[in-house]
Amino acid sequence: SGFVHVKNPHLDSLEEDVLYHLDLGTKTHNLPAMFGDIKFVCVGGSPNRMRAFAHFMQRELGLPGAGEELPDICAGSDRYAMYRAGPVLSISHGMGIPSISIMLHELIKLLHHAKCRDVTIIRIGTSGGLGIEAGSVVITDTAVDSSFQPRFEQVVLDDVVVRSTNLDKDLAEELLACSREMADFPTLIGHTMCTYDFYEGQGRLDGALCSFSSEKKLEYLRRAYDAGVRNIEMESTAFAALCGLCGLKGESCQFYLL
Amino acid sequence: SGFVHVKNPHLDSLEEDVLYHLDLGTKTHNLPAMFGDIKFVCVGGSPNRMRAFAHFMQRELGLPGAGEELPDICAGSDRYAMYRAGPVLSISHGMGIPSISIMLHELIKLLHHAKCRDVTIIRIGTSGGLGIEAGSVVITDTAVDSSFQPRFEQVVLDDVVVRSTNLDKDLAEELLACSREMADFPTLIGHTMCTYDFYEGQGRLDGALCSFSSEKKLEYLRRAYDAGVRNIEMESTAFAALCGLCGLKGESCQFYLL
Repeated sequence: SGFVHVKNPHLDSLEEDVLYHLDLGTKTHNLPAMFGDIKFVCVGGSPNRMRAFAHFMQRELGLPGAGEELPDICAGSDRYAMYRAGPVLSISHGMGIPSISIMLHELIKLLHHAKCRDVTIIRIGTSGGLGIEAGSVVITDTAVDSSFQPRFEQVVLDDVVVRSTNLDKDLAEELLACSREMADFPTLIGHTMCTYDFYEGQGRLDGALCSFSSEKKLEYLRRAYDAGVRNIEMESTAFAALCGLCGLKGESCQFYLL
Repeated sequence: SGFVHVKNPHLDSLEEDVLYHLDLGTKTHNLPAMFGDIKFVCVGGSPNRMRAFAHFMQRELGLPGAGEELPDICAGSDRYAMYRAGPVLSISHGMGIPSISIMLHELIKLLHHAKCRDVTIIRIGTSGGLGIEAGSVVITDTAVDSSFQPRFEQVVLDDVVVRSTNLDKDLAEELLACSREMADFPTLIGHTMCTYDFYEGQGRLDGALCSFSSEKKLEYLRRAYDAGVRNIEMESTAFAALCGLCGLKGESCQFYLL
């Protein structure tokens, strides 16, 4: 059917669904009227960048009002920022798995309530690169954890549930084909490693704590490279798992910011 | 000596330390002049609330310029917001362990470079309550994970390191004593449970995914209560572990927001 599906039998019995961190709700807002025609959702960590991206889309799509200030649809909440440009929704998710997870739960319910169909979601964040040129874009084929495994371990109450982290391979190829029309930056498909920590988790030597040597760091990053990892960020496994479970065609491509 | 200490032998050999997500650095800013007299750091998830808190502190401390707009010291970054009111620094940390960890690594280095002494850090966020009155404040004695254990599992490269999550007991008692002077809201000392997920991890029935029954949820929350948990949030174990390791006198007290 192409609808976004929630997997929660309790939702039907809710009189009102408050999307708290987005400052939206089924009683306070007409979600089908506001969002029913959305076809693409682009998400990234930084609110300023997601506003800039919405402006960029507005210009690229030749929409009326290009150049004018776009309103933040979630202005009543300072947890996330949301902008729309025609059929494209642009939303920030903050940093790390817990932060993107809250946003995705509420976004998926939003798209469900709004009766959106055939929605494609793309994460367009930044990342660290591994053995690739700075300024490259990595399109993720599979998101892997810090042991290079294609899995996302979700704690449900006190059980650990393992979820798969595959992304849409066709979409990855389509995005790679688009990139061939642009000579501005190298683009490749590879594994993306998702960590819970920016400093100790990604082998950085400049955190407040660092207990490993430069050699140990390089040995770890070399093993990651040999396992197919081409970049490292902090949201992709949860993104892949949640989108996959809810029928959202998802892809993640990150810019390697040096 | 009372100094904040970093535990990273590599830092001394850095020519410049860029606190990237705070938009500060040792070459671009005179950190001792800007922050050397800071004695208290208060942190919470929301940037708007941390700005409001800085304004509140400015009025409470009778500082000049009360009522005037306070500049965001991290204005060049939209990852975190930072304000100061006299000896008090007020900083947002976003949502979840990865987000607060990035901020704390850079804050700890900031306090270290600024040669701050005898700094007390307090997390003043919101939380869900367990068997307590809405509007209560829970002062955390121990932060526990989703299995009610007083530990924080930090992935360092691909090793898991277990860290302790004790907070400053004397400070907790001091804060409780302060609360006795105010009759506005109930205050108690208890364990705080820290989860990686807001919906499935905290037994909420209104996420996009929910695979457990209302009974299973209540049974889990009852076990948490019996283990001494009085509230649930998403940052306290990492906060306790990092502050403890770096010699910051730390406490976490959260308002139970219904």
